[in-house]
Amino acid sequence: MKILIINGPNLNMLGKREPEHYGKETLEDINKEIKEKAKSLKNIRDVDFAQSNSEGEIIDFIQDAKINGVSGIILNAGAFTHYSYAIRDAVKSIDIPVIETHLSNLYRREEFRHKSVLADACEGQISGFGKYSYILALQYFDMLNIYL
Amino acid sequence: MKILIINGPNLNMLGKREPEHYGKETLEDINKEIKEKAKSLKNIRDVDFAQSNSEGEIIDFIQDAKINGVSGIILNAGAFTHYSYAIRDAVKSIDIPVIETHLSNLYRREEFRHKSVLADACEGQISGFGKYSYILALQYFDMLNIYL
Amino acid sequence: MKILIINGPNLNMLGKREPEHYGKETLEDINKEIKEKAKSLKNIRDVDFAQSNSEGEIIDFIQDAKINGVSGIILNAGAFTHYSYAIRDAVKSIDIPVIETHLSNLYRREEFRHKSVLADACEGQISGFGKYSYILALQYFDMLNIYL
Amino acid sequence: MKILIINGPNLNMLGKREPEHYGKETLEDINKEIKEKAKSLKNIRDVDFAQSNSEGEIIDFIQDAKINGVSGIILNAGAFTHYSYAIRDAVKSIDIPVIETHLSNLYRREEFRHKSVLADACEGQISGFGKYSYILALQYFDMLNIYL
Amino acid sequence: MKILIINGPNLNMLGKREPEHYGKETLEDINKEIKEKAKSLKNIRDVDFAQSNSEGEIIDFIQDAKINGVSGIILNAGAFTHYSYAIRDAVKSIDIPVIETHLSNLYRREEFRHKSVLADACEGQISGFGKYSYILALQYFDMLNIYL
Amino acid sequence: MKILIINGPNLNMLGKREPEHYGKETLEDINKEIKEKAKSLKNIRDVDFAQSNSEGEIIDFIQDAKINGVSGIILNAGAFTHYSYAIRDAVKSIDIPVIETHLSNLYRREEFRHKSVLADACEGQISGFGKYSYILALQYFDMLNIYL
Amino acid sequence: MKILIINGPNLNMLGKREPEHYGKETLEDINKEIKEKAKSLKNIRDVDFAQSNSEGEIIDFIQDAKINGVSGIILNAGAFTHYSYAIRDAVKSIDIPVIETHLSNLYRREEFRHKSVLADACEGQISGFGKYSYILALQYFDMLNIYL
Amino acid sequence: MKILIINGPNLNMLGKREPEHYGKETLEDINKEIKEKAKSLKNIRDVDFAQSNSEGEIIDFIQDAKINGVSGIILNAGAFTHYSYAIRDAVKSIDIPVIETHLSNLYRREEFRHKSVLADACEGQISGFGKYSYILALQYFDMLNIYL
Amino acid sequence: MKILIINGPNLNMLGKREPEHYGKETLEDINKEIKEKAKSLKNIRDVDFAQSNSEGEIIDFIQDAKINGVSGIILNAGAFTHYSYAIRDAVKSIDIPVIETHLSNLYRREEFRHKSVLADACEGQISGFGKYSYILALQYFDMLNIYL
Amino acid sequence: MKILIINGPNLNMLGKREPEHYGKETLEDINKEIKEKAKSLKNIRDVDFAQSNSEGEIIDFIQDAKINGVSGIILNAGAFTHYSYAIRDAVKSIDIPVIETHLSNLYRREEFRHKSVLADACEGQISGFGKYSYILALQYFDMLNIYL
Amino acid sequence: MKILIINGPNLNMLGKREPEHYGKETLEDINKEIKEKAKSLKNIRDVDFAQSNSEGEIIDFIQDAKINGVSGIILNAGAFTHYSYAIRDAVKSIDIPVIETHLSNLYRREEFRHKSVLADACEGQISGFGKYSYILALQYFDMLNIYL
Amino acid sequence: MKILIINGPNLNMLGKREPEHYGKETLEDINKEIKEKAKSLKNIRDVDFAQSNSEGEIIDFIQDAKINGVSGIILNAGAFTHYSYAIRDAVKSIDIPVIETHLSNLYRREEFRHKSVLADACEGQISGFGKYSYILALQYFDMLNIYL
Repeated sequence: MKILIINGPNLNMLGKREPEHYGKETLEDINKEIKEKAKSLKNIRDVDFAQSNSEGEIIDFIQDAKINGVSGIILNAGAFTHYSYAIRDAVKSIDIPVIETHLSNLYRREEFRHKSVLADACEGQISGFGKYSYILALQYFDMLNIYL
Repeated sequence: MKILIINGPNLNMLGKREPEHYGKETLEDINKEIKEKAKSLKNIRDVDFAQSNSEGEIIDFIQDAKINGVSGIILNAGAFTHYSYAIRDAVKSIDIPVIETHLSNLYRREEFRHKSVLADACEGQISGFGKYSYILALQYFDMLNIYL
Repeated sequence: MKILIINGPNLNMLGKREPEHYGKETLEDINKEIKEKAKSLKNIRDVDFAQSNSEGEIIDFIQDAKINGVSGIILNAGAFTHYSYAIRDAVKSIDIPVIETHLSNLYRREEFRHKSVLADACEGQISGFGKYSYILALQYFDMLNIYL
Repeated sequence: MKILIINGPNLNMLGKREPEHYGKETLEDINKEIKEKAKSLKNIRDVDFAQSNSEGEIIDFIQDAKINGVSGIILNAGAFTHYSYAIRDAVKSIDIPVIETHLSNLYRREEFRHKSVLADACEGQISGFGKYSYILALQYFDMLNIYL
Repeated sequence: MKILIINGPNLNMLGKREPEHYGKETLEDINKEIKEKAKSLKNIRDVDFAQSNSEGEIIDFIQDAKINGVSGIILNAGAFTHYSYAIRDAVKSIDIPVIETHLSNLYRREEFRHKSVLADACEGQISGFGKYSYILALQYFDMLNIYL
Repeated sequence: MKILIINGPNLNMLGKREPEHYGKETLEDINKEIKEKAKSLKNIRDVDFAQSNSEGEIIDFIQDAKINGVSGIILNAGAFTHYSYAIRDAVKSIDIPVIETHLSNLYRREEFRHKSVLADACEGQISGFGKYSYILALQYFDMLNIYL
Repeated sequence: MKILIINGPNLNMLGKREPEHYGKETLEDINKEIKEKAKSLKNIRDVDFAQSNSEGEIIDFIQDAKINGVSGIILNAGAFTHYSYAIRDAVKSIDIPVIETHLSNLYRREEFRHKSVLADACEGQISGFGKYSYILALQYFDMLNIYL
Repeated sequence: MKILIINGPNLNMLGKREPEHYGKETLEDINKEIKEKAKSLKNIRDVDFAQSNSEGEIIDFIQDAKINGVSGIILNAGAFTHYSYAIRDAVKSIDIPVIETHLSNLYRREEFRHKSVLADACEGQISGFGKYSYILALQYFDMLNIYL
Repeated sequence: MKILIINGPNLNMLGKREPEHYGKETLEDINKEIKEKAKSLKNIRDVDFAQSNSEGEIIDFIQDAKINGVSGIILNAGAFTHYSYAIRDAVKSIDIPVIETHLSNLYRREEFRHKSVLADACEGQISGFGKYSYILALQYFDMLNIYL
Repeated sequence: MKILIINGPNLNMLGKREPEHYGKETLEDINKEIKEKAKSLKNIRDVDFAQSNSEGEIIDFIQDAKINGVSGIILNAGAFTHYSYAIRDAVKSIDIPVIETHLSNLYRREEFRHKSVLADACEGQISGFGKYSYILALQYFDMLNIYL
Repeated sequence: MKILIINGPNLNMLGKREPEHYGKETLEDINKEIKEKAKSLKNIRDVDFAQSNSEGEIIDFIQDAKINGVSGIILNAGAFTHYSYAIRDAVKSIDIPVIETHLSNLYRREEFRHKSVLADACEGQISGFGKYSYILALQYFDMLNIYL
Repeated sequence: MKILIINGPNLNMLGKREPEHYGKETLEDINKEIKEKAKSLKNIRDVDFAQSNSEGEIIDFIQDAKINGVSGIILNAGAFTHYSYAIRDAVKSIDIPVIETHLSNLYRREEFRHKSVLADACEGQISGFGKYSYILALQYFDMLNIYL
């Protein structure tokens, strides 16, 4: 089982930007830690990472997932979460399960972050746990295989 | 008279995605059929096709139409229809008529699809007729020449 | 195949009223042109015309269509488009396809014209092409037969 | 580390009620499985379970957690999620971290379930993963101890 | 002190598009005039120009500003002003002051242009003065150095 | 005591239209059954029936009720329920009690059917019981006489 | 100068209905008094009266005014004032000035009566003066001739 | 057939509270009269009564109905009608038909009483008939058996 | 009978300001014409004029009217019409009838002018007739005396 | 004169919870101080205290007040203030004056606290004075007796 | 300690205006009674009174309070309460505590009175107690000194 | 060229009030600095200053500008910016260009400050630059003369 983790706009600035919301670790630090964690999970064979500031490119990542052998997507679409109906359509256009994740608890932040246009197209949401949001999503994919 | 048909995000997934809304034909199938139909129309010399998942690229298609000798645009902007004021501005920035088309009847779908931010910038709307939406738009451009 | 074209309130004033939106031709002129056009369409045997300023009468036209051998309706409900849920129910109560048409691009006009309560009950919408809106709808019914 | 899992109104009907949203397992089945899972987690010493149809009783559970030696709460408040500002105040009145969980993806259901009045008072949200929503929350509490 | 002026979608059409709002000068004309004006300002060493129709590219410009030695940004995000929360996040992710500018007085135009999602992330706004909007922003950066 | 049952637009299509909401019986079938039922009610001397697709005609029915010796009205105004303030005024202009009835449970249907502009002008509402909605209204008029 | 006074739905019930809003005089009483008053006005040659409960018929009255030699209309559209966009279109379709009148002060009544969809299509509004509302409108038409 | 009648908060104050809305009879008086009436109904074997000011207890009544041999519920949830999504969920969690009743016509009262969150979960609504609202609901359950 | 005509902010600029709405006559011209007209009215003994740009002063005019022997007020409160609840309270605090007048038809202008906070405190409204709005109000006060 | 002070959900946590809003004193401390103060007030014979986290129990306190000889209630309903229409109905169902009090100034806190559903059912409001809110309410009851 | 009591527009009409809301006593009567009451309060040295119908003057009173030796303000801003953000800014611009008072319970009156724009700038609110609202505010200032 | 700078309510408190928004300099300090700056601008002959807490007086300043030889106005209307349609009308009634300025970035402050009712009546907006907002506006007037 290969999992693809997609990070949206400005998440490449992690560790540099608004540390009160996102902490001090960079995206590379977090990805490394996720990779490490994945090794301990029986059903996760591999984890791929993708990041882009471009809506179109994120849609491409999602559309190409199947061809790339991906069987689960963890998606933190950053600010696109709140208005990109195009990404939402991309999620619905594939038959790979997608989990929506967020580092921070969006409900403690600006009003516009309280609404996700992606939510009903995804399997479920995990938000507010910092880097653990990604790891929990990974564990879900791992468990899915154990239990089912 | 050369017509440009622009398809927006995820329309490259046609035939694969949510067939209850869009049918089973791929975009290539439809384009071929449109091309065929165009031959029977006296005033349509040529039909060009463009598709992109990127908002910026669609704006580029629209801005470059004139240089490319296009005299009418048929635009199915997909999900961008509902929030891309930038594409709307692009439509207004050129003096080539643009027709807004949609495969499905948007009013039978999610609430967010009921509002088009492109509508008042375009000549008119044709929606709900599947691939025939494009063909009707083409026939309009053809008739414009016959009658006027 | 017999098609019924229903025009709603004040469309009998066409050619006299607000020419900046509707042009100078009268409804009779347009009907004649449609009739002419229909002759060139293989699958359209006949076109009937009905107009009324009364909501109830328009509902009657719709309910009686089947008995009158009509197999497709083109409906320009005028201002009723925006609030007549009764006409909407009539459209849903029959099993003849109905196409919503408008002469002008409603999105370039008053706010109240941006919402159609008929839209989800109809097959699709064609608006903004003047008299050609009716003709395109006619061509759709014609094509339906060719292709299917 | 002792964790308290609180289930709100009607969750005692699990396995009997609207299986398309909640599955066929009863709350007892799920609790047993969670208990089992907890044994495999190093930092979770114990898991307690509480359920009530009464808003006041749920507030009591939350207020009494500290005295009962609880160091983390997993809260599925059911329909109270959407209007019980009193439970929200209770969550804020204690200094034990609370995780909001839901069995189903609320964004795929009725409009009123899209808004949580508890969200900004809780650490984070996990929703849409069925019984795994509870288990993921448990794993978070376990990880918190490993990493920190 | 090096200043970067970023222009968003369709501003490359300046001089060609809707002259009643934007005047007849092209973006190149305006940039040349700004460059000229900058020479007369003591504290402005250099002015760079960037334009893109792509949201992602504009985010890249903003993120890369620091590495490129920029110490102040003048941002006319065009239509993205009204919905690009991703650009807003980019502005907040850097510690270079950004000034929001607009050529036209947005409050005299369409309703959707009355709301800026960038406004609270920027230092201030200058709008309605045509090309002088950019020049005033430049003068502010110049004065900042004189006075402070 | 003579009761008048008024049915609004499209209710003449009962049994033919959207059977999932209204069942398969025609309006004539239902009226016959009501008539039959009325015979068993001591205080109901007679039941009259009226149906129209026209708002104006329904107002006429209501205004003329008194002259026609009617002492109670059962009103299913169909789609007019949701926007006909003119029918509402007619109900208020007479001093005969009017009961609002609906065949289906309006709250399980489209949003626009959740609001009745007639409700506060009527005595009470009975909805969701199919043809029994009319019969229950009839029984109320019958009981009024027994008890009072 | 011939003036047409059109009264909408339920105004035929005047004197019988909700006297706290409309007084005790019947429509006939009022019409007689208006007729009397008109005799004293130099420039008013004749006053015609029309009343209908039907929206379609009121539209017919308005459309036929010119043929009938009418040069000014006084319109009290009753409840249609608040939702009949079709009557509004009729007012705009003619080039005879129309004055909107109301017997009662609508702002002292139900919320739905605070909005007129006819207002911007009419010359002006006179409301709250009982029967004098009609007489003042008549005097305005009379003065128009004196002064101009 | 055993029917359960559940009354919500403050209905125990009937006869004492706001008599202009609810009349002077106490809840006990009404229950006695209902009991009496039930005897005359062929298919109603028994009527049980429950009242509570507590949301949780009302949910318990609903959940326990089946075990108690109840085959139909008449529910006047009082003020809970307007915000208790938890009671709504309880109604949906059982497979016994529930009828929503109200003593007064809610549309003649405060704005907040115009919205019922229970409505779409119940079979139908009967409101505005005082104590007869309960009796009509009882008659419906009785008729259900006669006719079916 | 002495009538006071109060004009609000910026009406002293009449004849100079936005002539497309207000015409070319100055306030002094209009007042003179009103004075002249009043002489021809039997029951109007005198007309006083007051104008102020200050909300407080307008309230003073209204409060002092009685002491000054005024028995009717004609109030054109200009922009205060749309937000001055303080003037509204002043109108309600006296027992002299007040008529709200406007020169232009407010419904043909900016959205904010469509709402009057004074309307329900005044007897009635006359708007859209230019200077004749004042004269019609005067005629109403004159008629009041004739008829009553 | 016996006064009952009712405190709603989470007020039992006073002194422990969010001290920036509520201060450091416990509810017991405050009650003791109120008791002390009451002794100095001539017309207050006794003060009773009740607290509950349960909406139903608070309704019971209010309904039972009369039987318990209470002649004035001071009610701080906590979060129930903002949604418990059931408590509002209870306040209206008794004929004892109720004063709504709050420790903190609700308008300086979360948006949802700006609306009280109890306000129009109570005599008046005192909020923002910490424990003095209760004491001022007590003094009002005391004064009522002195002055009246 | 010197206290300033400021009354806003139309409160000079007290005793004359809408007695059902404000009672029959004049502002002078009330002020005298407050003065009398103040003598019995240990920590209140003096009470000053100010009233104006002018927003600007009320702002002046607030700005000048400090210079005049005032150490607490009691503010009944009348209708300005609901829209004068300028008075709100004045309250925030000084460091003297201000208490918002109202004679009537605003929540029992017109909708527009339910919102106070001053509320979050003031210490707290006392409303609905007639003249006692002022006296309770005075007692609060007195107690502040006793207890602190 | 003589420029008038108008400051609205509470701006006379600058340097004393909420320094986190407005800084520590007084209005006099700022005016002196502006005066100084103006000397260095070729086309600005003179700068006048006016401040008032009264809406009416600000309207007077604007109306009298022409007579006083002013050819450009810089307007910081303080809180009036957000609701004074009367000041807006004054700005529209003159033919002198007006620039709207604000010291602070209004979008970083309270919601009510995000909307300006003056904006579309002014030439443009400059906000968020402290005292430099005035100076930039001055420089614009200076440049206007150079370039044009």
